[in-house]
Amino acid sequence: ENWVIIGVVCGAAVLTVGILIGHFGIAKSGTSAPSWLKDVAKDVDESLIEKFMSEVDNIQIQENLRSLTKVPHMATTAGDEETVQIMLKRWQDPETGLDKAWREEYWVYLSFPDKNNPNTVTVVSPTNTVLHTIREKEKPYTPDQSDPEVVQPYAAYSPAGHVKGKLVYANQGKPSDYSELNKTVDLRGTIAITKYGGAGRSAKAINAAPYGVVGVLVYTDPLDMNDGLMSDANETYPHSWYMPPSGVERGSYNIDFGDLLTPHLAAKEETYRINATDITGIPPIPTQPIGFEDAYRLICELGGEPAPDAWQGGFNCTYNFGGPGFKPTSTAVKASLSLFCVAFHVSDVKLDIYNYEEVKPSSNVMGFIRGSVEPDRYVIYGNHRDSWVHGAIDPSSGTSVMLEITRVLGKMVKQGTWRPRRSIIFGSWGAEEFGLIGSAEYTEQYFAALSERSVAYINVDIAVFGKKLHTAPVKAPGHEKSVYDNWLQYTNKTSPTHGLIPRMGYLTGAGSDYAPFSHYLGITSMDMSYTYDKTKTNARIYPAYHTAYDTFDYASKYIDPGFVGHQAVARTAGNVLIRLADSLILPLNCADYAESLEEYLSTALNLYEQKLKSMNISMGKNEYQPPLLYHVFFLRPLKVRWINDQLMLLDRAFLDPLAFPDKYGFRHVIWASSSAGKQTFPGLADAYANAESSGQASDWDKVHYHLSVLSQAILGAASTLTDDMPIKEWLKNFH
Amino acid sequence: ENWVIIGVVCGAAVLTVGILIGHFGIAKSGTSAPSWLKDVAKDVDESLIEKFMSEVDNIQIQENLRSLTKVPHMATTAGDEETVQIMLKRWQDPETGLDKAWREEYWVYLSFPDKNNPNTVTVVSPTNTVLHTIREKEKPYTPDQSDPEVVQPYAAYSPAGHVKGKLVYANQGKPSDYSELNKTVDLRGTIAITKYGGAGRSAKAINAAPYGVVGVLVYTDPLDMNDGLMSDANETYPHSWYMPPSGVERGSYNIDFGDLLTPHLAAKEETYRINATDITGIPPIPTQPIGFEDAYRLICELGGEPAPDAWQGGFNCTYNFGGPGFKPTSTAVKASLSLFCVAFHVSDVKLDIYNYEEVKPSSNVMGFIRGSVEPDRYVIYGNHRDSWVHGAIDPSSGTSVMLEITRVLGKMVKQGTWRPRRSIIFGSWGAEEFGLIGSAEYTEQYFAALSERSVAYINVDIAVFGKKLHTAPVKAPGHEKSVYDNWLQYTNKTSPTHGLIPRMGYLTGAGSDYAPFSHYLGITSMDMSYTYDKTKTNARIYPAYHTAYDTFDYASKYIDPGFVGHQAVARTAGNVLIRLADSLILPLNCADYAESLEEYLSTALNLYEQKLKSMNISMGKNEYQPPLLYHVFFLRPLKVRWINDQLMLLDRAFLDPLAFPDKYGFRHVIWASSSAGKQTFPGLADAYANAESSGQASDWDKVHYHLSVLSQAILGAASTLTDDMPIKEWLKNFH
Repeated sequence: ENWVIIGVVCGAAVLTVGILIGHFGIAKSGTSAPSWLKDVAKDVDESLIEKFMSEVDNIQIQENLRSLTKVPHMATTAGDEETVQIMLKRWQDPETGLDKAWREEYWVYLSFPDKNNPNTVTVVSPTNTVLHTIREKEKPYTPDQSDPEVVQPYAAYSPAGHVKGKLVYANQGKPSDYSELNKTVDLRGTIAITKYGGAGRSAKAINAAPYGVVGVLVYTDPLDMNDGLMSDANETYPHSWYMPPSGVERGSYNIDFGDLLTPHLAAKEETYRINATDITGIPPIPTQPIGFEDAYRLICELGGEPAPDAWQGGFNCTYNFGGPGFKPTSTAVKASLSLFCVAFHVSDVKLDIYNYEEVKPSSNVMGFIRGSVEPDRYVIYGNHRDSWVHGAIDPSSGTSVMLEITRVLGKMVKQGTWRPRRSIIFGSWGAEEFGLIGSAEYTEQYFAALSERSVAYINVDIAVFGKKLHTAPVKAPGHEKSVYDNWLQYTNKTSPTHGLIPRMGYLTGAGSDYAPFSHYLGITSMDMSYTYDKTKTNARIYPAYHTAYDTFDYASKYIDPGFVGHQAVARTAGNVLIRLADSLILPLNCADYAESLEEYLSTALNLYEQKLKSMNISMGKNEYQPPLLYHVFFLRPLKVRWINDQLMLLDRAFLDPLAFPDKYGFRHVIWASSSAGKQTFPGLADAYANAESSGQASDWDKVHYHLSVLSQAILGAASTLTDDMPIKEWLKNFH
Repeated sequence: ENWVIIGVVCGAAVLTVGILIGHFGIAKSGTSAPSWLKDVAKDVDESLIEKFMSEVDNIQIQENLRSLTKVPHMATTAGDEETVQIMLKRWQDPETGLDKAWREEYWVYLSFPDKNNPNTVTVVSPTNTVLHTIREKEKPYTPDQSDPEVVQPYAAYSPAGHVKGKLVYANQGKPSDYSELNKTVDLRGTIAITKYGGAGRSAKAINAAPYGVVGVLVYTDPLDMNDGLMSDANETYPHSWYMPPSGVERGSYNIDFGDLLTPHLAAKEETYRINATDITGIPPIPTQPIGFEDAYRLICELGGEPAPDAWQGGFNCTYNFGGPGFKPTSTAVKASLSLFCVAFHVSDVKLDIYNYEEVKPSSNVMGFIRGSVEPDRYVIYGNHRDSWVHGAIDPSSGTSVMLEITRVLGKMVKQGTWRPRRSIIFGSWGAEEFGLIGSAEYTEQYFAALSERSVAYINVDIAVFGKKLHTAPVKAPGHEKSVYDNWLQYTNKTSPTHGLIPRMGYLTGAGSDYAPFSHYLGITSMDMSYTYDKTKTNARIYPAYHTAYDTFDYASKYIDPGFVGHQAVARTAGNVLIRLADSLILPLNCADYAESLEEYLSTALNLYEQKLKSMNISMGKNEYQPPLLYHVFFLRPLKVRWINDQLMLLDRAFLDPLAFPDKYGFRHVIWASSSAGKQTFPGLADAYANAESSGQASDWDKVHYHLSVLSQAILGAASTLTDDMPIKEWLKNFH
C-alpha cells in the first residue's frame, strides 16, 4: 500500500532539481511536454530572455570580481564591510539598481586565530627545545597575498589549547581509520595527522578524541588535489592552478549549520543563547591545518609499520603509522631536515592553539524587485559574500555573477521595460564560511513567510570551479557548443520521460547556502556552477580553495581567462531566474521528482527488502513496485490540477521536523544528508546501516520508524497533489 | 523592537476565534466594517443561508439522537460499528447525502476493563476479610442503562494491579495537595482518594506516585457537580439533571493526545510503534473512579486531622486527611456502615484492577462535498462518534447536529441548487474518548495537505451542555432573543474595534478534536456549543458526563427538551460553515487576533517585565507598548493586502514544532496549553512560573528562550501579512 503513493507522486508531481531540464530539454525538444506547458510558455517573454542573455557581459563580471577581491574579506572584518558597501551601492544605483536594498544584521558566534599570538605547530625535544616550526602563513607570490589581513590558516571552532605528543598518521580521520590505527598503535596522548577528504573537517578530531588522541593536524595531500605535483618552482601556482606547497585549506570545523549559539532562533542581539559548552559537532581537541610542505616533512619521518596501500598519498616516501612518533635517527635524514637530527625519534609534535570565540555582528545584504502580479511570491537568488581570504572564486565568482544579473535586470526595471510577475529577493549572505550562518539565520527569522511564499531558491556560490584544465581544456561555453550540449556530453542520464538528458546531482548535503532553504524550509532549490572535466584530474575542488591563493590573479589566469565561463553561468542562472519569476505556471516539472523517488525506492528494495522481510518489517506490497509505478506515471500527468501552489509547496510536504533529531536543520525526508553512502531514502539508509552494524533490536526499531516516516511523508506529499480529496479516496479513481 | 510586531499583526492580521463576531457583530452593525468587506459580502448568498436556517429541523435532530444512542457505542465495540453504518448510510444517501463518504481506519492502542474480571475496590481487614465492596456498576433507572454493554466505570490506561493500603484524602490530587498532605501523613503505601477537578485525570495518579502512594481513587464531589444534592429519591436523575449517587465519570487517564504508540505517525497497521513501557503521561499506579455514594462512606470515616477548609466538599461530615486510614471504631458508626464495625480503623482499601490494553482498528467516517471554484481549499467540520456509554450528549448531540447540517446541505447539493465555493470535509472521528485519537491520526496522516489547504476547522462535540436549568431556565434560543443577543447578554467583552461583543474563550487546551487541528496543524479553529448560565450552578459540566445516565431520556428531558437548543447550534454552526465555504474573501477578521496578542502582551508586561529587567532579560522597548500599538492597529488595516492565503495561513505561522518538547502535539506558541494559570503567552508563563519557583539559572534561561521563540514567531507571523517584502523593511513604510 505504501508504494502506490510513489506512483501518485509520479503521476501528479513536480521536479526539485530539474528546472533546467524542463527548459533546455523539454522545451527545446518539444516531444514529451504536455500541451498546457506550451500554452502557458508564452507567459515568459522569450525575447526578453534573449535580451537579458545578450546584455550579460563577461568584462563587467571580471570588473565585479576585481573590486570584490581587492582585500581579504573574512566575515565581520573591515574587508567584509567594504563588500557590504559595494553591494549596497550597486543595488541602490539609480540607473541599474533594484527596487530596494538593505542590510540585515545577526550577532553570530565566530572563531578566530589570535593575531597577537599566532597558532604554532612545532616539533620539540623531550626538553622542549624547538627542533622545527611549521610555517605560520602561506608563502606570498603576489602583493595581495602578503596583505597583513590574510588570516593565518586555522581550524575555526577548534578549541584553544597546548598539547603535545608523538605523531601518528590517521589517513582521513574516519572512524574506520582510527580503529585500524588503534590495532597496532597505542593512541593515547598522540597527535594525529590526517589528510582532507573522506570525513568532515571536525569529524577528524571528533573521531580521534575517544582514542585518547590529544591534537589533530590536517593537510591536503598532493595526490588528492595536485595530481601529485608538489614544486612551486615550475609545477604549482603561480605556474598552474595547483596548490603551492605552503597552501593551506582553512575551514569551519563544525557540523551543524547556522549560528551555533542560537539553534532554530535568529541570532538577534537580545536572542536567547545556549552555553558555548553545550555546542556539539566541533573539535573537542586542538586542531590545526598545515601545508603539505610541512606535512611531507612530518609524514615521511614517521616510524612504525607502513600504513595500508589505500592510505598512501603523493609523497615520495612510505606513509607509516608512526611508532608512535618519528623514525630512529639512524634512518636517512634529508638535508633540509637537519634540525630534526637532534633526538629526532624521541621528539613530540606540539600544538599551541590560541583561537578565540566572539559574538560579532554579521550582515546579509538584501535586494528586492517587487513582482507586478504576485508580489508576495518570492523567487530567491543568493550567494554568500564572506571569504576566508580574498575569495576570488569562493565566493566572489558567484557574487560577481549575481551583480551582473542584478545590473542587467535592475536596468530593465529602472527603465520600466520589465517587471517580474513574482517578487525576486537577492541575498548576499554573511558568515557562510563559518557554517552557512547568514542564510540560516535569515531562514529562521522569516521561517513562516518564506515557507509560505517562496517559489524556489537559486544558489550560485562558486560560479566557475574551472573552465579549462592545464592539460585538457573543455570547450569554451557559448562558442562551439551550448551549455546544454556541453553538459549533456559530460554528465548525463537516461530518463524514462525525457530520454537522454543532463544529469543533476541531488542537494543532499549542506555545502552552501541552499541547505537552510532546501533542508530546513523545504523550498525547491538549485545550486549551479560551471566545472571542469573530472575525468582529467583527481582534484576534488579547485586547488586554491580556502587558501591565500584564491585571488583575482588566480581566477583570471587559471580558472576562467576571459570570464566567459562566468558569463555562461550568469546567462544560465539568470535565464532560470526569469523563468521562475515570470512564468504563469511555475516551470517545475513533476517527472523528475517521480523518477528520483522511483530510483530511491528501487535502490531501497534491492538493498533492504529481503532482510527486513526476515525481521517481519514490511516495505510495502509487491503490486506497487516498479512496473506499475511507471504505468501510473505515464497515465496520470494530465489528470492532475497543475497549480502553482501545489508545485511550490510540494517540497514543503516532505518536511518532518522530528525525523532527524541528530541532524541539525535537516527536515526533508528525501534530501537529508546521509552517512550510509547509499543513494536512497536517507533516514532509512542510515538507520539500516546502523542496525546492521549493531544488530540491536532498538536499532531495527529505528529502521521500522523511518519506513513509517517515509511512507507517511510520501503519502502526505501525494495528498497535496490531488485535485480535491485527500489521497486515499482519490486513488480509487484509478482502480 | 519585538513588540512593534504586535502592532503589525494588529494592523494586518486575522481573527482566530472571532468568526461569529465578524458576522453577528460587524456585518449586522455595519459601523466599523471596511468597505471591501461589504463589497465581497455578496459572494455569500444570504437567501441560501436563510433557506438553510429554515430547513434545519429540531425533530430531525431528535430522531438522529435517538438512533445514534440506541446502544452503548464505546470506540471499536459493536455499537461503535453500528454508528459507523449510520453515518455511512446517511452520507451516502442518494437524496440527502454528500458527494462521497468513506471510512478511514487506524490501529490504535486502547485500554479496557476485563468483562470477565471486573475491577473491584474493597475495604479489607488485616486478614483480608472483605468488609465492604464498592459498587461495580451504576444503578440503572431505565432499561438501556442496564444494557450488558454498559462498560464498567474505569480509568482508561490505568495499569492493572493489586494494591492495598490505608486510605488518605488528597483533595484534587494536585502537586500542592499531596505536598500539603505529606506534611502530616506518611503517604508511603497508602491509597489516595481524590475528587475530579483541579488537575487532569492522570495527573492525580502521576502526582501521587512520588510520595509512595500505591493506588488512587477518584470521585465526583456533589458540591462540585450537584450543587450539593445527593439523593436519588427526589433530587438527582431521574428527577433532575444531577448525577445519581452511583454515577461515575469514566475517562481517559492520559495527557498526550493521539495514539500513544505512534507519536507523530498515523497509526496504520504496519506503522512503527514505540514500546508500551515508553508511554508517558498515564497513571503509574492502579487508579479507579467510583461514585460519590461510595466515596461518602469512605471519606466520612477517615481519621486523622481535618483537611483544610478549601478541601471540604458536599458530604455532611468533616473531610479528614486520613490517619492514614479510618477512624477508630469508637466513633459513631452509621447503621448503613455496620459492616465496617469489624476492626474498621485497621482496615485497608484494596484495588484489584484488571484493565488490559489492546491495539484495535478504530474508524473515522469521512464525508466530502466538492468545492466548485476552489476544490482544494477545505473547510473541515467534525465531531467524534464514540462515547463511553450511550453518549447522548457527549458526543451524540454534536453528531445529531452534524447529521442535520449534512442532510440540509446534502439535499441542496443533490438537487443541484447549491455547491460551495470551497470543498467541505466532514469528519466523524473515532476513539476521541481515549485521547482525540481519530482526529489526531487523521491530522498526522494528511499533515501536509491539511496544512496547506485547510481554511478552518469547526468542532461541535457536545452541542448543548444545558439549555435550561431546573432552577432558572435560560430563554429558549430563537424565541424571545437571538442566539447573538443571548450570548451578548450572558458573556461579553468590550473590544477596542467592535465595542461590546460576545466573549469567546480561547482554545488553549486539548478538550476535544479541535486540538490536533489548532495546536498541531495551526489551522484556525472553533469549538461551539450551547451552554447553561454558569452563575446559577456549580456544575462544571452537565452532571451525567461520561456516566451511564447520558442517554436519550436524559438529553430529551433535562438538557434540551424539544431540541431547540440543538437546532440553534445547527443553525449557527451551519451558518458559519457556509460562510467559510462560500465567501470570496474568507470571513476571518484580523482585529481579534491583534486584540488577543495585545492582551497577552499587556498581561505579560505586568506580570514579568520588572523581574526580568532585574535579570537583564529584555522584553522589548517601551515605545512599542499599548498606546502605539493601538495607534498602528487603527491606522493600518486598510493598507494590507487581504488575501485568503494570508488569512488562512496566519495561524500556521505561529507554529514552532520545537518550542514545547514536553507537550505532545502542541506547537502553537500563542494557544498552547499552559499550567501557569496566566492568560498570556503560554511558554513564557510556564517558564516564568517554573523559574520563579526553582530560582535556578537554567530555568531563567528557559524564560529567555521562550521570549526569543515568541518574538520570532510574532515577527514571523507578521511577515506573512506584508504585501510584498519581509517585515523589517516593510515596517519602514510607517516610520
